[in-house]
Amino acid sequence: MSELITKAQKAKASAQGLGVKTTDQKNAALHLMAEHLMSETDFIINENEKDIANAKQKGFPEALIDRLVLNDQRINDMADALKQQAALSDPIGDVLESWDRPNGMNIEKVRVPLGVVGMIYEARPNVTVDAASLCLKTGNAVLLRGSSSALHSNKALVDVIHRALEKSDIPEDAVQLLEDNSRETAAEMFKLNDYLDVLIPRGGKNLIQTVVEQSSVPVLETGSGNCHIFIDESADPQMAIDITVNAKTQRPSVCNAAETVIVHETWAKNNLPELVKALQDHDVELRGDDRAREIARNLTPATEEDWETEYLDKILAVKIVSNVHDAIAHIGRYGTGHSEAIITETDDHVLEFFNNVDAAALYHNTSTRFTDGFEFGFGAEIGISTQKLHARGPMGLPALTSTKYIIRGEGQIKE
Amino acid sequence: MSELITKAQKAKASAQGLGVKTTDQKNAALHLMAEHLMSETDFIINENEKDIANAKQKGFPEALIDRLVLNDQRINDMADALKQQAALSDPIGDVLESWDRPNGMNIEKVRVPLGVVGMIYEARPNVTVDAASLCLKTGNAVLLRGSSSALHSNKALVDVIHRALEKSDIPEDAVQLLEDNSRETAAEMFKLNDYLDVLIPRGGKNLIQTVVEQSSVPVLETGSGNCHIFIDESADPQMAIDITVNAKTQRPSVCNAAETVIVHETWAKNNLPELVKALQDHDVELRGDDRAREIARNLTPATEEDWETEYLDKILAVKIVSNVHDAIAHIGRYGTGHSEAIITETDDHVLEFFNNVDAAALYHNTSTRFTDGFEFGFGAEIGISTQKLHARGPMGLPALTSTKYIIRGEGQIKE
Repeated sequence: MSELITKAQKAKASAQGLGVKTTDQKNAALHLMAEHLMSETDFIINENEKDIANAKQKGFPEALIDRLVLNDQRINDMADALKQQAALSDPIGDVLESWDRPNGMNIEKVRVPLGVVGMIYEARPNVTVDAASLCLKTGNAVLLRGSSSALHSNKALVDVIHRALEKSDIPEDAVQLLEDNSRETAAEMFKLNDYLDVLIPRGGKNLIQTVVEQSSVPVLETGSGNCHIFIDESADPQMAIDITVNAKTQRPSVCNAAETVIVHETWAKNNLPELVKALQDHDVELRGDDRAREIARNLTPATEEDWETEYLDKILAVKIVSNVHDAIAHIGRYGTGHSEAIITETDDHVLEFFNNVDAAALYHNTSTRFTDGFEFGFGAEIGISTQKLHARGPMGLPALTSTKYIIRGEGQIKE
Repeated sequence: MSELITKAQKAKASAQGLGVKTTDQKNAALHLMAEHLMSETDFIINENEKDIANAKQKGFPEALIDRLVLNDQRINDMADALKQQAALSDPIGDVLESWDRPNGMNIEKVRVPLGVVGMIYEARPNVTVDAASLCLKTGNAVLLRGSSSALHSNKALVDVIHRALEKSDIPEDAVQLLEDNSRETAAEMFKLNDYLDVLIPRGGKNLIQTVVEQSSVPVLETGSGNCHIFIDESADPQMAIDITVNAKTQRPSVCNAAETVIVHETWAKNNLPELVKALQDHDVELRGDDRAREIARNLTPATEEDWETEYLDKILAVKIVSNVHDAIAHIGRYGTGHSEAIITETDDHVLEFFNNVDAAALYHNTSTRFTDGFEFGFGAEIGISTQKLHARGPMGLPALTSTKYIIRGEGQIKE
């Protein structure tokens, strides 16, 4: 039997008992994992160095190598994250609803684990620990498929997790790492409906698109963010500038950073030069449409491609519109349904924006950078869903759960 | 442009304004649809007769032709269903959660429509009206793809719906019927991620499996039910017999009917012959394992295939077990995660069953036949989900919705 099927079967078999582990049992396992990460730091760093050496030999770009590196600080951060997850409240077993029917039956809707989660990700070994612990906390087994360039690191981390679980009440089999990273095996994993309840891809656009297109297992899509800030006629100038600078520059490489600022023509006439200056002071390259370039002449011309691009960099497109409707239409055409903000003092326009923009998170007078499980107060984040089924926006622990109905009767039959 | 893309675009364009239609506007449209169904009954029946004539000519089985038939009574029932849906509370706009963050932002989680629902179904024209009205009530546009054998009926029904919507505030474009029923077009529809937010297949196992396997659009899987009744040692004999007879015979052709009865050996020794007699009095054919056939000698031998089969007929498999663990293991191996019942007076066994059986609906001392949106009190049913993502078990109106986060601030930026 292939490695994939063997490990998928082990994960599924272990999942059957996981849903009834107590919160204490699960939290004890998380603490043991944290302890082992700390006491086995040297082993992890040693194995990680093999991946780094390979990556350097293959001439990987510096940014990619940086993501691969595990050092004392990063391992310590992982251990801290585990302890924080242990402190979160456990959603499993929560009774979400309970009601009686006229025939006397009682119906309860109860939170249960999903079962087995398939995780497909790129060369970030921290995802190995993060995915394992979030799944464990929610009573799920997990089948991990990382990148071959992080294989030594991932194997070391899963070895450490297994040694921790051995001392706990959680079966080691609940965490499985695929060592065969071939495309063929990935393609087979996409069709494992008999073993996997969900697939979660974490990584770049291409990875996610491949999983969405090819998987028959249900997918939790975490996607790209082409986010907009709309500065309305009545926007407070300083607030609008502060929010735009923040949404673009505080961390340009993430999905909730702004990529286009849409500016009302009247506001632009009075304030665009100042906005441009503030952004340029933060080393932002600006690409404007014709009307923006009439007001602020030092902008590069924007092309159609600019409206579509998630720069993930210190570049911002600037579009001038005549009213809130045109802003909403632009977002409807180019947005990816992630995070969209309106800066205005006009209540009607807030309502219009909230009602007519279709996105996971809509902001009034606030930076788009808050679309994040921790900023929302969830205490954890599986990712940010850009799909509409199951979970939308930042996903906390409940996104890794399902429900079942429990019906209690005294002999009721259907008439 | 193909019919598929043209209609998908129209559906998507109309969906943008649907989420903000008021409950009154939507309900008025439902009532107009009901009125038009009644006043245009003759037209509908005329068109339906063309499908019936074709079906007879092609030698369709009687049961299939029966599903196709539209008569006064059935059209009246459809109109009644529309009025009942109008009376249901509207989930759209509900604020599900609201909280403040330490930085002063307020976050609301609000219910919104999914967007555009793709519906793929077989030769039951009533699904056309049902799907259109449930989608309309939840602010969704719908792209319908029925069976070519019901095309005249479906076109007539959608014509009638369009004439009703013309008088309402809901755009006609919100309900689109595909007339090209080729496999190629279906395959193209499975990949319409740019236009469809979800695909819902309604029909037989093969249809559903094809959609699940081939679709890159997220699917709401409504599936087969290989449901079990476990009669424990302490079960009240008469209650166990009544429930088993009900779960098997009250309507054998549906997914929540029982297909196997698992009987504790001690209970079997005392009561199996009586259970067998009661079932045979209801014309049920019984297929037993060796131990069952020792106690009740007039059973057909069961094969491995019997444990796997959803008979959807008056046939029931009988399995003897030594304890609740063996019953749970059998269900774990052969169940489809739909509806499972335990009949017992032993509280520990109820808990064990509820904790360890993985299914959408678990029953204690109750017939499995109650797994149904109407029996659960939802007032509507999109189908019964056998997947774990988004919705599980009977799906009412909320299954056709998503959520968005609304964040209100006063200039908050991320530090």
